[in-house]
Amino acid sequence: MVLETIREPEDLRKLNTDQLGVLCSEIRRELIHTVARTGGHLASNLGVVELTVALHRVFDFRKDRIIFDVGHQSYVHKMITGRLKQFETLRQYGGISGFPRRDESPYDCFETGHASTSISAALGMARARDFLKEDYATIAFVGDGALTGGMCYEALNDAGNAGTRMIVILNDNEMSIAKNVGALSSSLTNLRVSSEWQNAKLAVRRFRRIPIIGKPVYQVMHAAKTMAKTALVRADSIGFFETLGFEYFGPIDGHNIQGLEKTLRKARSFNGPCVIHVKTRKGYGYDKAEERPEIFHGTPPFYVETGDRTEKPDCPSSGHVMAYTLGEMAEKDPRVVAVTAAMPLGTGLDHFEERFPGRMIDVGIAEEHAATMAAGMAAAGMRPYFAVYATFFQRCYDQMIHDVAMQNLPVVFLLDRSGVGGEDGKTHHGLFDFAECLPVPGVRVLAPADTRELRHMLKWTLTQDHPVVIRYARAGDDVPGRKDEPFVLGKWQMIRGGKDLTLLCVGTMVRQGLACADLLREQGIEAAVCNCSTVKPLDLSALQKIQGKPYYTLEEHMLAGGFGCSVREACAEAGTGGPEICFAVPEKYLQHGSHSLLMKDAGLDAASIAERIRADLERSQL
Amino acid sequence: MVLETIREPEDLRKLNTDQLGVLCSEIRRELIHTVARTGGHLASNLGVVELTVALHRVFDFRKDRIIFDVGHQSYVHKMITGRLKQFETLRQYGGISGFPRRDESPYDCFETGHASTSISAALGMARARDFLKEDYATIAFVGDGALTGGMCYEALNDAGNAGTRMIVILNDNEMSIAKNVGALSSSLTNLRVSSEWQNAKLAVRRFRRIPIIGKPVYQVMHAAKTMAKTALVRADSIGFFETLGFEYFGPIDGHNIQGLEKTLRKARSFNGPCVIHVKTRKGYGYDKAEERPEIFHGTPPFYVETGDRTEKPDCPSSGHVMAYTLGEMAEKDPRVVAVTAAMPLGTGLDHFEERFPGRMIDVGIAEEHAATMAAGMAAAGMRPYFAVYATFFQRCYDQMIHDVAMQNLPVVFLLDRSGVGGEDGKTHHGLFDFAECLPVPGVRVLAPADTRELRHMLKWTLTQDHPVVIRYARAGDDVPGRKDEPFVLGKWQMIRGGKDLTLLCVGTMVRQGLACADLLREQGIEAAVCNCSTVKPLDLSALQKIQGKPYYTLEEHMLAGGFGCSVREACAEAGTGGPEICFAVPEKYLQHGSHSLLMKDAGLDAASIAERIRADLERSQL
Repeated sequence: MVLETIREPEDLRKLNTDQLGVLCSEIRRELIHTVARTGGHLASNLGVVELTVALHRVFDFRKDRIIFDVGHQSYVHKMITGRLKQFETLRQYGGISGFPRRDESPYDCFETGHASTSISAALGMARARDFLKEDYATIAFVGDGALTGGMCYEALNDAGNAGTRMIVILNDNEMSIAKNVGALSSSLTNLRVSSEWQNAKLAVRRFRRIPIIGKPVYQVMHAAKTMAKTALVRADSIGFFETLGFEYFGPIDGHNIQGLEKTLRKARSFNGPCVIHVKTRKGYGYDKAEERPEIFHGTPPFYVETGDRTEKPDCPSSGHVMAYTLGEMAEKDPRVVAVTAAMPLGTGLDHFEERFPGRMIDVGIAEEHAATMAAGMAAAGMRPYFAVYATFFQRCYDQMIHDVAMQNLPVVFLLDRSGVGGEDGKTHHGLFDFAECLPVPGVRVLAPADTRELRHMLKWTLTQDHPVVIRYARAGDDVPGRKDEPFVLGKWQMIRGGKDLTLLCVGTMVRQGLACADLLREQGIEAAVCNCSTVKPLDLSALQKIQGKPYYTLEEHMLAGGFGCSVREACAEAGTGGPEICFAVPEKYLQHGSHSLLMKDAGLDAASIAERIRADLERSQL
Repeated sequence: MVLETIREPEDLRKLNTDQLGVLCSEIRRELIHTVARTGGHLASNLGVVELTVALHRVFDFRKDRIIFDVGHQSYVHKMITGRLKQFETLRQYGGISGFPRRDESPYDCFETGHASTSISAALGMARARDFLKEDYATIAFVGDGALTGGMCYEALNDAGNAGTRMIVILNDNEMSIAKNVGALSSSLTNLRVSSEWQNAKLAVRRFRRIPIIGKPVYQVMHAAKTMAKTALVRADSIGFFETLGFEYFGPIDGHNIQGLEKTLRKARSFNGPCVIHVKTRKGYGYDKAEERPEIFHGTPPFYVETGDRTEKPDCPSSGHVMAYTLGEMAEKDPRVVAVTAAMPLGTGLDHFEERFPGRMIDVGIAEEHAATMAAGMAAAGMRPYFAVYATFFQRCYDQMIHDVAMQNLPVVFLLDRSGVGGEDGKTHHGLFDFAECLPVPGVRVLAPADTRELRHMLKWTLTQDHPVVIRYARAGDDVPGRKDEPFVLGKWQMIRGGKDLTLLCVGTMVRQGLACADLLREQGIEAAVCNCSTVKPLDLSALQKIQGKPYYTLEEHMLAGGFGCSVREACAEAGTGGPEICFAVPEKYLQHGSHSLLMKDAGLDAASIAERIRADLERSQL
């Protein structure tokens, strides 16, 4: 095996053309078989095998620096920078991350996870290099999808102005997570012209030699040529980048290592900001992924031969239920419209779009714009529902406050994947959303215990003229014993009685609370479990009623600024006793792995909670 | 006076050319004299007088919708939409706002304050219009400065793709708040070419008639022409917008009402997204403002004749002290670099730049990029200090978490104008920053009591390898009685003794706390005052020491997620008593007016606090 001989990237430089071909096949095989077992990002990594190898042959990333935008296309980079052996632990608890991690390797110089940050970071490094009078290349490796994010434009604009040496690799697979949106994307595919210009230039030269008439003809044509050239340089080689001050190389074939190396070397010696436009094919080399790249973008474990998932989910995801319910609402109410920032599949909104083509608006990877655009729609009479992962909601924090909440507009934010995430790891947990929303006047903050409650909440939103935030996890299986009834704002639901103490549980923690109550019962402690699905406003009368015996808050969120702190403050204001313990994620970054292991890490599994409560009760009885 | 006859915008349509000229002069006079008295945004409003009048003559904003980006250039719009009489109350408590406000007038259809939101909102409205089968124009009125914000690009990209009817007015004054930065800005000023092309076209036609040689010459030239034209259409009429799918009109003279109206009418009937490029002159019509437009961008009261400020500040602002101190640090440490998002004057960094040209990086109105670019610099060995208004810091919330904090990079965020703002009103208060930062693992959060402490904190940051957030208000006069000593993280400073109770005060509230203690003393109550300048980590030993008598927290921040809640949670964890009352901004949006009146509104003036404490003590003694 060639791949196994690559201990350091410099080993790549010893390979001949044939060996490189073998290497790329081996890498692809390893990618497919590992991700089939662990799940992860497959299609994007298959697309960048040759490009990554070529980069490591031309540059020396012991000193040069590369930043992978979003970062889920760094698997190949990991394999050839000394992490081949650990690659089987990909995305597993304690194993290597599916994203660049500085603590994994000196070859990972900057961590990513959210889109559109790489050009900013690369520019920052380039500036640092110049200030400190060092000498190395800085490279931002960015997909055409991430380029719809405004940050990229801010960075390109700044970099073009600064004029410092840096390289942007535009990995153009004409398909980001979903089919690409945005006008820029269509422009990217319309590049040609250069050869036309070359021909004209020759023709003009020929006429120069004709006597008498030749000179004036030449002069006029020369004027035309200069003009055309000036214009063409901008419009032809992608006017967009050149307008922003970048030198443009490409487009080049992303699966031809020799061609790639030639252009990379040219860019390496260019003294200014430049962009290399590389055409790649997502899923390249695995027919299932090439056929359905959006399915194999981020995939759960699957059978290599059929491409089918190893396990089918037992019940529909929260996103699926949300989309279905939104469809029911849209049927009756023409004001209902769905918004996504390039995540129709992840959020489940693809199901909504199937039913109501044109009523799901995909704005690209542009959460800021999505929120304010939704505010504009709401101000003009629509009812927009913006479904977004909780972690990406952080991107439109200001827009939520400034454009939605301050104007009290009826925009509904649907925060999927909130709480502790899983294999995607630390950049993808949704643990800050309560802290974001609770201080903002007028915003209602909800967290359903299961998808049945989510349905009721969604329907309820149409009766509201205020901003609403609903946070939920990917799964939302029915909570046993919970009464299914229409949602009432600010009314908590006691779903299990218990004379000794009360567990105030939010969202996914209702299940955990029930499991915890079971464990406590084994020790003779009877815990009541309350579903606190309205986090703002709090149910002050419920808080009043549970006084007199110990109670605890449980949430999948950071402790600071969360539900527990909010309950504690409300109790202090009411002059009643606060919770004994607020169970929440402590002051640390949870890593990647299965949800249950991470919850244990956070001390939020039923056993840890039950144990801490038992100890607390014991202490207080002393 | 013509201006007084304009009760509704439709009255504008009755005026002839001469009357329009008189009107514009009258508007300018009113603008200059009012702002000279109230302070406010002058230069930008002087620049858009004709443009605003022309817009109201061509469109009917009882149905059409206009969104002023940032919104501080809406004064003329306010004057001619029925608010002339109230104009003298501009930015005063209870008076009209300096920004569009939906509760002021049906002509203000969308509120703004932060930059770069207007295109998103206008697109949202255009989409709502299409969905609801209504018929009106939607207009985003945006300056070239705001165009450096990534949101604009996200919105242009989405709008170009959607292809729906909407108008972007690009108010190009070649000067946003500071001198404009970014490569796009330079492109905007390079538009010409058209006339050259016209000449060449004529020349080519002439040659066509020459016998024998004429035809082939013509053919080649025709090929060149076609090529050049294709290119020119994109590059000349601003390829940037066309790449994004917008029709382009302009550039046109923004001070010629007839010309403006002609183009506006053309755009009104264009069925798709279009941009009108209008060249205006900031400060037009008032020589002082034309000469120094950046000074008259946002100005305190001034003498009309000299342009000098009515009142000189007694002592340097926090920003000024910050910039001076940073300069001292930069002198010794080559890693120190300052970053601003188009606010060198507002943040005081212009003083730093004077001393160290090239070491202040102005990235344009692009807070997201600024934060991640700073992270890149820090990852490559620099020590970036990003000075930003607390309210705009909301824009880079995700970048602070994802790019800075998660990688534990030594970026220092300097949050100016934090706490309750003043005349700029609700969009400009800095009341969410603690809630943003406290839940984020590893971030140190500081708030100096005065500028002396700010100096010590800044110097201390160079000893740290972590992200630090320092929040301060514009003014930071010395707190009397406070001992000036080097900053120690996590160590609070008792600055006044008192046997009856303790006031735990953060930042600006230290002064308020002292005033409150004075008032309480009059009633025979002795209050100790503690300067809690480290908000994270809390000084747990100080919290331990003050137990046994009542204590209160005081902060200029929202209650939820703030300092008080953090103290309360820490006390609960430590098993000690929490604060009696957390004084903070309650659940409402503070409006505009003087700082002292707004503090009263929030119940945070010394008298209100003292009174509530007195009542609390009385109650607890019952």
